[in-house]
Amino acid sequence: MAQTITPVLLAGGSGTRLWPLSRRRFPKQFARLSGEETMFQAAIRRGTGAAFGPPVVLTAAPFRFVAAEQLAAMGADPEAILLEPEPRSTAPAILAAAMRAAPDDLLLVMPADHLVADADAFRADVAAAAAAARDGAIVLFGAPPDRPETGYGYIRATGPIATPAPAPLPVEGFVEKPDAATAGRLVAQGALWNAGIFLFRAGAFLRAVREAAPALMPPVAAALRGARADLGFLRLDPDAWSGVPDVSVDRAVMERTPALRVQPLRSAWADLGDWSALARQVGGGATPTQGAATAIDCEGGLLRTEGAGPRLVGLGLRDVVAVAMPDAVLVMDAARGQDVGAAVAALRDAGVPEADAFGREHRPWGWFDRLAEGEGFGVKRITVRPGGRLSLQSHRHRAEHWIVVSGSLRVTLEGAVRDAGPDASIYVPRGARHRLENAGPTVAVLIEVQTGPYLAEDDIVRYEDVYRRPEAGD
Amino acid sequence: MAQTITPVLLAGGSGTRLWPLSRRRFPKQFARLSGEETMFQAAIRRGTGAAFGPPVVLTAAPFRFVAAEQLAAMGADPEAILLEPEPRSTAPAILAAAMRAAPDDLLLVMPADHLVADADAFRADVAAAAAAARDGAIVLFGAPPDRPETGYGYIRATGPIATPAPAPLPVEGFVEKPDAATAGRLVAQGALWNAGIFLFRAGAFLRAVREAAPALMPPVAAALRGARADLGFLRLDPDAWSGVPDVSVDRAVMERTPALRVQPLRSAWADLGDWSALARQVGGGATPTQGAATAIDCEGGLLRTEGAGPRLVGLGLRDVVAVAMPDAVLVMDAARGQDVGAAVAALRDAGVPEADAFGREHRPWGWFDRLAEGEGFGVKRITVRPGGRLSLQSHRHRAEHWIVVSGSLRVTLEGAVRDAGPDASIYVPRGARHRLENAGPTVAVLIEVQTGPYLAEDDIVRYEDVYRRPEAGD
Repeated sequence: MAQTITPVLLAGGSGTRLWPLSRRRFPKQFARLSGEETMFQAAIRRGTGAAFGPPVVLTAAPFRFVAAEQLAAMGADPEAILLEPEPRSTAPAILAAAMRAAPDDLLLVMPADHLVADADAFRADVAAAAAAARDGAIVLFGAPPDRPETGYGYIRATGPIATPAPAPLPVEGFVEKPDAATAGRLVAQGALWNAGIFLFRAGAFLRAVREAAPALMPPVAAALRGARADLGFLRLDPDAWSGVPDVSVDRAVMERTPALRVQPLRSAWADLGDWSALARQVGGGATPTQGAATAIDCEGGLLRTEGAGPRLVGLGLRDVVAVAMPDAVLVMDAARGQDVGAAVAALRDAGVPEADAFGREHRPWGWFDRLAEGEGFGVKRITVRPGGRLSLQSHRHRAEHWIVVSGSLRVTLEGAVRDAGPDASIYVPRGARHRLENAGPTVAVLIEVQTGPYLAEDDIVRYEDVYRRPEAGD
Repeated sequence: MAQTITPVLLAGGSGTRLWPLSRRRFPKQFARLSGEETMFQAAIRRGTGAAFGPPVVLTAAPFRFVAAEQLAAMGADPEAILLEPEPRSTAPAILAAAMRAAPDDLLLVMPADHLVADADAFRADVAAAAAAARDGAIVLFGAPPDRPETGYGYIRATGPIATPAPAPLPVEGFVEKPDAATAGRLVAQGALWNAGIFLFRAGAFLRAVREAAPALMPPVAAALRGARADLGFLRLDPDAWSGVPDVSVDRAVMERTPALRVQPLRSAWADLGDWSALARQVGGGATPTQGAATAIDCEGGLLRTEGAGPRLVGLGLRDVVAVAMPDAVLVMDAARGQDVGAAVAALRDAGVPEADAFGREHRPWGWFDRLAEGEGFGVKRITVRPGGRLSLQSHRHRAEHWIVVSGSLRVTLEGAVRDAGPDASIYVPRGARHRLENAGPTVAVLIEVQTGPYLAEDDIVRYEDVYRRPEAGD
């Protein structure tokens, strides 16, 4: 049996250009852009099958529970989830994965927020590149362009491009985000879009880094040596990581290594980095809609609303993108996708909480959704996974009223333990020590009504926590 | 002291062209378009002061509680609230008000959904027209146009228009919704917009109807004879009303009576009938915003969100109107205001509940807001006025969990009575007879969490109701 390939998922980004769907505290790779799965789940699924071993996931600490939750939901069992203590570009994350692997391991590095339309064709292209990778090539995958896009990087290959390509080709050079004229020329010359997906032997990549960017090696090695296992996550050492240069793998390694080859992709590929790209991707002449959205006499653009979001109606629009969430709505000219990040930064500077936060918060035991807030009260829906166990806690300023909707919960209240099923209600007075736990076989849902003068997440005293969380809002 | 004038408010319309703010079950006159008061309240306030007696309000049965609520909130005590059993145009409603009055009463008829910018100037114009009205003239108020609007009706007066005008002028003719060229000519000729506001002696109006539209008299008179007092409302007789012709007062009476005069208005006036009109009214070059809305690099149009609605961000928009409510968002070309009604009708045909319903429902005891709904549960915030008393009721399919947020409530549950203050929680099992009552001096707020397989409003059995309501959803 041939050697299996280890998928390495880069899922640490926290872009806001797809706001309000993607936010700092819930970035786009964990959102459903289309279809049933999130982009992260689709990327995981892309690297499954007989040819692949369990994946390695790189992400940031604030996203660890949502990543674990989404892996669990699809039945995926990762080899490891590495947590980057601070955001860095791609080179350090890939290097950390390569250092943890055995030198002969084949690694398939994939961003978790790209669209690859045909997963079977993708796996066939990976298989076609595997022999060269085993022989020491660093294989970059490139997508044949269908337009002179100025937002992508381009790779020029030596020789004519054929798809399917039986093996990767030598690389002549990179052009990063060209102007329109240059992009047109590159497309005419048969250049490929740089898909940011790589296949290599771990040892080959390490050799390339040692030659092209040796300064990266010591701090990343130190961050791995100082890494700490934490409930199934592997936290890289924060002190060492703070000294790691913030550099992309293209700039640090790929543009400099003679080992680079490029494998053309058969599947359509896109970096759905902003709403303009997404509208172009899904659009035709009419205005595409997603969720409870209705387009009347509209052209171009995109109308979408999330499951719990408001009904959205567009009337007589030309090239307008509207995205509605329960707490925030973006309406914009379809050509302005690149400016959303700056707009969100302006909101953040103005103190608008919706700039970063999100109605749903993931926790190790499950998640909660903020349903409503008003003077003196707040309402949450709390979902606890089987086996999930909230910390033993109390609140100084609020009382809590729990109403079980489905499933069964074990409630600890001032030392007394009882089981509560659907329709049960439990009153937790201000200051009372309490804990919720799902001892049943199915997910449990309850409505929590908080009452009191101060209802923020930081009003919590934790006495005991199986997930050993340091911070209140974690 | 001079005779006082009785304001007659026409508040029965249920237009949806300002959807999602205005809906069949919560039309625009009861919404806040700008400022602190609703359009209905602003119209009531316009007819207050030493010159005016208590108002007469004409509205429809579904709006009676919200009208009463808004009158009470501003401390207004109406002479009567007449309920039209079915929607009719303006002539029958005005005739009913005139028939109830003494022949020498001066009536000031005002639509409840118009903007009059300067209430003092308006009252001065009413005073200037009063002598002519006492002498038997039917005085129509007209607004000097500032543009060749094609959506309004025009009145041509005899002689030059001056404002302030010491007395009303003879009328030469009407032009209803002219084309653009005609509108331009009318504006150049000094024609006025028909503001739909009238001042007359009741007897003078009755004489004009007898002469111009005698067929109106018998069925309206019968509807009044058969009217039934109901908790402070006067319900016109439904059988008689069903035979009343559906005709506007302009067509039935004003275009035909020699008694008509026109008084020019000093104040700016607008019929804010749709979003295009509203955007034009509030707009300048930049995009006006209302509520939690942010316009970035936008021109024209309008961005508004309601108090509890989502954060709204516009980016790079040109002449786009976006209106965000918690349950529905409209985004449209600013010139398409006239098409919103048809769009809402299409939503209704498609079974979209947000087409007509609204998150807040008014009841005689106060109101409730739907905060959240999901599988197996629903959450409402219930606000009970002092003295408010819900019916003694039970539900077949749902249990209710109440949590008091503020104020004090008297709870009846299976015959037992207790008082519940802030933070108290009460469990109402499926099938249990229960009643809520605010016996305290302040408004009481509670959160109701409903659990069960079926949560619609029609799951209610009423045993006793001080408001004698016939229908479940009332």
